[in-house]
Parts: sequence; C-alpha cells; structure tokens
Amino acid sequence: MSPTIRVAVLGAAGETGSSIVNGLVEHGNFSIAALLRPQSISKPANQALKSRGIDIIPTDLSGPKEDLVRALKGTDVVISAISAMELQSQMPLADAALEAGVKRFVPCAFMPIVPAGGVMMLRDAKEEVYNHIKVIKVPYTIIDVGWWYQLTIPRVPSGKTDYFSGSQDLFNILVGDGETHGALTDLLDIGRYVAAIIADDRTLNKYVFAHNEIFTPNQVYEMVQRLSGETLTREYIPAETLYKQLNELNKALEKDPTDLVAMVDKVGVQYKISWGARADNTPQNAKYLGYLDAKELYPEFKFRSLEDYTVGLLEGKSKPVYSDNKDMQAVMKARLARSG
Amino acid sequence: MSPTIRVAVLGAAGETGSSIVNGLVEHGNFSIAALLRPQSISKPANQALKSRGIDIIPTDLSGPKEDLVRALKGTDVVISAISAMELQSQMPLADAALEAGVKRFVPCAFMPIVPAGGVMMLRDAKEEVYNHIKVIKVPYTIIDVGWWYQLTIPRVPSGKTDYFSGSQDLFNILVGDGETHGALTDLLDIGRYVAAIIADDRTLNKYVFAHNEIFTPNQVYEMVQRLSGETLTREYIPAETLYKQLNELNKALEKDPTDLVAMVDKVGVQYKISWGARADNTPQNAKYLGYLDAKELYPEFKFRSLEDYTVGLLEGKSKPVYSDNKDMQAVMKARLARSG
Repeated sequence: MSPTIRVAVLGAAGETGSSIVNGLVEHGNFSIAALLRPQSISKPANQALKSRGIDIIPTDLSGPKEDLVRALKGTDVVISAISAMELQSQMPLADAALEAGVKRFVPCAFMPIVPAGGVMMLRDAKEEVYNHIKVIKVPYTIIDVGWWYQLTIPRVPSGKTDYFSGSQDLFNILVGDGETHGALTDLLDIGRYVAAIIADDRTLNKYVFAHNEIFTPNQVYEMVQRLSGETLTREYIPAETLYKQLNELNKALEKDPTDLVAMVDKVGVQYKISWGARADNTPQNAKYLGYLDAKELYPEFKFRSLEDYTVGLLEGKSKPVYSDNKDMQAVMKARLARSG
Repeated sequence: MSPTIRVAVLGAAGETGSSIVNGLVEHGNFSIAALLRPQSISKPANQALKSRGIDIIPTDLSGPKEDLVRALKGTDVVISAISAMELQSQMPLADAALEAGVKRFVPCAFMPIVPAGGVMMLRDAKEEVYNHIKVIKVPYTIIDVGWWYQLTIPRVPSGKTDYFSGSQDLFNILVGDGETHGALTDLLDIGRYVAAIIADDRTLNKYVFAHNEIFTPNQVYEMVQRLSGETLTREYIPAETLYKQLNELNKALEKDPTDLVAMVDKVGVQYKISWGARADNTPQNAKYLGYLDAKELYPEFKFRSLEDYTVGLLEGKSKPVYSDNKDMQAVMKARLARSG
C-alpha cells in the first residue's frame, strides 16, 4: 500500500469538485481537505463535506500569501475545480502551492478538448493559468474529460427527463449533419479518473485526457429513441448559423461586457462550434495536442456507459446538474426570460 | 533505406536555415527546396543554394493562398527558420501546408527553453504561431535548441576572437553569481538534429529539445582562460539590474514602438533574465514543459563539444554569425553608436 497522499480541493462542493471528492474517497488512498472561503464554510453543501470527514481549510485567495502558504503546508496535491468565473484566482493559489512545496498542482481544466488560441474564451482563460503555472514552475497535471453525459441526452416528448432541469438543453443540439464524433464522460466518473491520475507518477507535468465513450449526436438520438421508445425530432443547426450567433454575441458583449447571459451563451456557442463544427473533442485531437490518454494509462478502468446512464435518466434516477448552483440557476432563468 | 523525404525550408539562407540545409544534405535522405521571396532569388546566398542542388521555389507569403498551396504540393515537411521579425508570416504558410497535405510543419522555434506567458516577447510571438498551428490542426514538430555556442564565448584580452564580429557579446554576461546551468548547442549541429528529428515518427506532434552540453557561465570563463592562457575579467550583473533594464526598455518602447534597437535590446535582456535569473534553459525544464529530449531519442548523436568549438574560435577558424545579415548588422551599428 502506498502512503496516503494529502490532497486539498478548491471548489469541492461544485459539480466537478463533488465528483472529485467522491472519487478520492472511493479510492481510499487520500487524506482530503476542502479549501473554502471563510464565509462559505457554513453552507449546507460544505457542512456536508465536514460530516464526511473532509478537513475544512478556510482559504481566502485574495488574502496574504503567507496565509495561503501556511494553509497548504504538508499538502501533496492541490486540485482546483473552481468556477469558470473565478479562474484567475488560481494564480495566487499556484504561487502559494509552489512556496509550500506542493508536489502537484491540478488547475481547473476538466473540459472537452479545445485548442488554445481563439476558439473558446473559456479555454484561453484557462491557458493563462497554465502559462502562469509553467512560468513559476510548480509541478502540474492538466486533466481534460470530454463532454458530460449530463449535458448530452436530449429531452423526450413524454417529459420523462424534464426533472433533470433546464441545463441539459443548453448544449444539446445537432451541429451540421450530426455526424461529428465526440468524447463523452459521466460526470460521476471524473473523480475516479482524477484519483487514478494524481496517484500516478507517469502523469506528473503532463496533460491527460480521460473520457468514457465516443458518440456522434445522431447516435445519441438513435440510442435515446431505442431506450425510451419515443420519437424525437431532430433539429440540425448549420455551422454557419453558429458562427453568425457568435458574431451577434460578440457584438452584444462589446456593448455590455458584463452581460452574463450573453457570456454564458457565448461559451455555449463556442462549445458547439468546437465539438460540433471543428471536431476538437476527440482522443485523436487530444493526442495531437500532446495529451496522454487515460484509456492507455488505465485499460482496466471501469466506467458507466452512456446507455446505462440514459436508462437511469429515463427511470428518474439521475441527479440534475447545477441544481445547487445559484449563479447557474440565475443565468438559466434570465435566459428563459429573454427568449420569452 | 527509407524513401526520400521532400523538405521545403523557409529562411534557408539565414543562420539557422543554413545549418538546417547543411544537416539535411549531410543526412542524405531528403530532397530539399528553399522557399524564397521572388525578389530574393538573385541574392548570392540564395544562388549558392541553387548551385548546391537545392530547388528554388518562389514563394510570396502575402500572396494568394492557392499559389502557396501549389508551391507546397508534394512536400512532406515544411521547416520555417524565418527571421524573428517575420514570425507572423508563418500563419498563411501553415494554412497552405495543411491544404497541400504537408505531413509535418516545423515552425520557427530553434531557441532556448523559455515558457510562454510573459517571460519573453519573442517566445510569446512564437506561441501565437504554435497556437494557430494547433487550431488548424496541421501536423507539427517544435524543435528548440538551447543557446548557441556562437553567442557564448567571451572575448579574450588579446583580441584573438575579435574577428568574430560584435554579435557575440550581445548576450555574453554573467548573471547573478554566474552559477546558473544552461544548455548550449553548436549552431552548426542544429541542422543535423533537425534532420534526425524530422525523419523520426516519434517526434510527430511533439516538442523536442536538442542540445549539446550544459555549462554555467563561470565554467565557460574558466574553460576559455584555460584554453587561451589569458586572464578574463568577469563582470557579474545582478538579476535586479536586468529587471530594471527591462523596465527602462519597456518605457522606451511604449514611447516609440518602432525603436528597433530597444526591441533587440529587450530580446537580449529578456534572454538574460530567462537563462540567467530564471534558469529556464535546462533539459529538466524542457521535460517539465513537455519536450522530448534528443539525448534520449538519439543517444549515438555525435556533436562538437564547446571545448572543440572554443579551440577553433581561438585559432581563427570560426565563421562569425549574422555577418551576412544586413538587419542585424544595422542594429549592431546603431547599438554601438547609441552606447557612444
């Protein structure tokens, strides 16, 4: 048995963060701490962490560096699953991790494969953090995970899946002819991949791509029809329409850079362009971009199939995503209101 | 014997480009073309290429894409050793290479190890090109080479090395205590590394670091003293002084962004900070940043030692660098004039 690895997780109560904490607990070889804003510690989701034996470390990322360094002393691995709105706050965390002698810093990546350089503003914001990490020379691992099952399955006419909240249809469209292959992963498996990856010396200072299965959107629709026995209408959206939408959103954001709905919609459109029109989110492209493939690193890894996930979803057994996330809920509501 | 690989070189008459052409010729397994601006074909250096059996392909990087695509049809590997001033012109070349079915695009890297993200403007300008390559998905290899021997050896008091032009002392200083290790390579060996790397499937879509030897500046001075029998004075420059100089140069460039001397000096100061103060230019850092190591790929590779190079330099046998480069000569002259 290898010695226990001490891990600190930022954003432990978020969607990806929860999966990571669960994965670490299940793996069993980690002692786990959650880095929490002092004012957030009393939140129910964070108190729930405490009751599971997760250490709580009050952490103010905008506070003095020496406090952050002290908080991270003795930590082997720092994992950040911070929200997309706060990516830049990882810079001081990385600085402190370096000074505290942290052996591996895992910044918030956990997204589909997208190249840096103008395809997605979200990806480019992450690149700035990766660059900072490499400039200060803290040991790192960057883990991307493909597209969540949880944002993949289209609604069925019977309304059986409507309990799954409105978030699922944010991205759930057929781009072009619906034949672009994309890598999909169960959100609930992400933490188990992360546990395997951070316990593995081969992944130090590397990019790793972890995904469960490959589907085209057409294949997803066919599978959902087969499993539900319902007939789904397919709306195909040409790539040019997406580029036009992006153009409109850029104009709206030029006028009002604080327009949160436009920002979230832009992230959505850029995602669709990336996986749907550009076919970025594939294991081949990950390899081309320099990633190790978790399928090769962990050939024995057991994951849930998209079919099993879909069966559970149709049976009403899936936990909706973003349901505890007030920011996302507010954006959804604003989107609905705007679209009338 | 593997089939002949058809290579097209941009910047074939420059310092790195000449080394590359020589390395490809020596390797023997390549058919070589030089991509030349139509108005440069008549230059003596380019005519010399022709007389060595190098194909000349007139290439206007700002011309219509279809002309570039036609020029690259049938080319297996495109290597760019373009000047630092024209890095962005590689974008249309990469676009055309993709469309022409080029199997490997080697952009202009060929520098010491420096991370992207604000350490060096020259490195960040190259990063933009690398990002473009990855966005369009042309197969690539990025090759960095450490610091040239040719810019490493300090002048000796007897003046024996003064024939080597003024370029050598652009970067030849002792930063801090002079104890920072750095990777050094003979400019004349670079092409031989490139030939090995582009004939090797393991390096496709990878970063490769090729260097000859590791020295500290103090060790260089000691070696030169031993070989020349002369006593050299050492001037140590504290890192803070370099950061102050950088600050001044940034101010000058803010006032006049076209100040070429300030720009070249900024590149020089940023290099000194990178290898001297930050210790970026090491095989360890290359590995950390994701590079393959040519020492591991080609353990049998024969290179010239720094000692052998220095003996030749002291005997008057080294070919000065940048002596054919009018731009660099003009900058040197302007620098000298400015420093009085």
